Amino acid sequence: MNYPFAQRIARVRSSTVMELLRLASQPGLISFAAGLPAQELFPVEAVRAATDRVLDSQAAAALQYGETEGYRPLRELVVREMASRGIECRVENTLITSGSQQALDLVARVFLDEGDYVLTENPTYLAAIQVFQSYGARFAPVPTDDDGLIPSALPELIARHRPKLLYTIANFQNPTGRTLTLARRRELAEIAGRHGLVVVEDDPYGKLRYRGSDLPPIRSLDTTGHVIYVSTFSKTVAPGLRTGYAIAPEAIQRQLVVVKQATDLHSSSLDQRIIHEYYQANDPVPHVERIRAAYRERYAVMEECLRAELPEGFEWTHPEGGMFLWVTGPAGMKAHELLVRGLETGVVFVPGRDFFPDGGGDNQLRLNFSNTTVATIREGIPRLGRLLRAGS
Amino acid sequence: MNYPFAQRIARVRSSTVMELLRLASQPGLISFAAGLPAQELFPVEAVRAATDRVLDSQAAAALQYGETEGYRPLRELVVREMASRGIECRVENTLITSGSQQALDLVARVFLDEGDYVLTENPTYLAAIQVFQSYGARFAPVPTDDDGLIPSALPELIARHRPKLLYTIANFQNPTGRTLTLARRRELAEIAGRHGLVVVEDDPYGKLRYRGSDLPPIRSLDTTGHVIYVSTFSKTVAPGLRTGYAIAPEAIQRQLVVVKQATDLHSSSLDQRIIHEYYQANDPVPHVERIRAAYRERYAVMEECLRAELPEGFEWTHPEGGMFLWVTGPAGMKAHELLVRGLETGVVFVPGRDFFPDGGGDNQLRLNFSNTTVATIREGIPRLGRLLRAGS
Repeated sequence: MNYPFAQRIARVRSSTVMELLRLASQPGLISFAAGLPAQELFPVEAVRAATDRVLDSQAAAALQYGETEGYRPLRELVVREMASRGIECRVENTLITSGSQQALDLVARVFLDEGDYVLTENPTYLAAIQVFQSYGARFAPVPTDDDGLIPSALPELIARHRPKLLYTIANFQNPTGRTLTLARRRELAEIAGRHGLVVVEDDPYGKLRYRGSDLPPIRSLDTTGHVIYVSTFSKTVAPGLRTGYAIAPEAIQRQLVVVKQATDLHSSSLDQRIIHEYYQANDPVPHVERIRAAYRERYAVMEECLRAELPEGFEWTHPEGGMFLWVTGPAGMKAHELLVRGLETGVVFVPGRDFFPDGGGDNQLRLNFSNTTVATIREGIPRLGRLLRAGS
Repeated sequence: MNYPFAQRIARVRSSTVMELLRLASQPGLISFAAGLPAQELFPVEAVRAATDRVLDSQAAAALQYGETEGYRPLRELVVREMASRGIECRVENTLITSGSQQALDLVARVFLDEGDYVLTENPTYLAAIQVFQSYGARFAPVPTDDDGLIPSALPELIARHRPKLLYTIANFQNPTGRTLTLARRRELAEIAGRHGLVVVEDDPYGKLRYRGSDLPPIRSLDTTGHVIYVSTFSKTVAPGLRTGYAIAPEAIQRQLVVVKQATDLHSSSLDQRIIHEYYQANDPVPHVERIRAAYRERYAVMEECLRAELPEGFEWTHPEGGMFLWVTGPAGMKAHELLVRGLETGVVFVPGRDFFPDGGGDNQLRLNFSNTTVATIREGIPRLGRLLRAGS
């Protein structure tokens, strides 16, 4: 049967990453592919206690329809959380979403017409590429180095493409692990204001810093109402509760709410109240510190193993936080072909080219170090080393 | 500030209904507006027990990312549930969504390009109108009478508009409460197959029948792969858990999954497992019977009060199930103006014109009888009668 699908659908690439999520459960396979947080660190007891309190004291409301904007006490909590990150906002600027993925989708839907340009880091988050593609957007990759995207390249790109959005992950970027410097954040905020460019600052990993000092979000440097800040409870509480949020200028927030209503009416009443109750009863700081300590160690061990095991001609990034690092091999290497052999020899990763909207990255790959253990890293990186030596 | 919003956004009407959800909490106000199930009938204890079991035995998985298609045991449960409604399908045909609203959104996104036509009952579900509008669709209302939409009118509409989708609520339609007869279901399935028309059968209320016999879903009469069946656990378990599903031919299901992944990766892992565990431990039939008994009585009392209180020149539908009935007043009545006065005098409803994609319905209004009590109906319908007498 030929169904009359929308034209836009043909343009959306389906994701190697999500396919790998399935494969990652094969016995004996070591996966550095999936971008999952470590589930042994989930605050299970605290979530269970929070859930009990929600169902004891507010069961009917937790099971009933709720407001599209989100559970108001959770929105107020987000406002306080934003203040701690240097972002001034009000409840009217906040929208609770089904994970930060949905926040990206809603922003794309509010801004993008067929053929509009989006500026992105190059490479960038795979599922953001899919979202923008699904609305028919075109991509204008921004030149990027170890300090993140290069703002001085923007005026020319803006003049040439008149982009609707710039999408950036300023902290511990996915997939590279790179962090945008403070000077560049200032420059980006200033250029956005001057050129009327709307910036989507996606910050899922900001709290997962292992060394160095926190940098202010671009949103905190924005004086002209051009930055939408997007984050999530997925990395600091639990992703299965699908609770994220967008902080946007009020005129944008109103449009996001209209679209959110058409999309799913509102996010889970129960999950929102569990997250809120969790924060009421627990100091989140020690829990996040526990996650950071574990990931910091995993990163250090991966770094050590890569130095010992990767052949000549390979280099990789040295992120100060987050969940990923980014390996570059010699020109001519084909990471997607190596992945097929890796499935046989028991080690997987995400080939680099998935993260480039317009091609490239054949000789690159992404490694995750959050959803693994020190022992697994010590076993898996030598496997990866053998694979790369054989294939490059 | 002028933001460069997408053109499609200007076309989405925001909803009086959701605004009313807020107003409905004013003290003393009687609301027949919101389309909520009765929260005093939620199976709170059974949901609490199900939640305890999920967090006891599968906490990590319930808090972790999951598959885009949904939690597999819940998909298998949906397949069995479909069999009980006469629908043959496999796990590969099922997709778990964040409420049935999201299923409508995903279907619209997979099929609709700017300017495509959608056939709908006239009037139809407000939030479906918003979804289709948000993708730039145009509407071709299908002539409708007390037996639902009139299939014999379809061939001409299909020839004229080449519609991508036909959207129908065959059981106890929102807003009219009307049910499509069996003969018309057969005719619709046949016409869809003959003309290659994709039908979206939205069935949130099918289990809420108060008299008469269940009719087979259109999907069960479809032999050619043209019907997508959409339903939800919102009316039989709890809407706050935001868990619905779509049953689609496999080629369509694959596209829905690609789009779902871009939209929000997957629906809440916890909520899906709670629903599944609830069905493992409870026979759902007596609970649904309890809901049906309560709504049946509320409907009967509303019917009795309308007969006693509404002035000459008013008529209304006599639904065999669901949550709504539909009142038609004399020509010249302006229900949206009456609503403003109703807010002052303490009784609200949804004005009819919100449900017409292309205008009409000024002298009509929707009444909800699920989210109220017998006592409230006995107090509220006389208020409504006074309002309508003064205003018509």
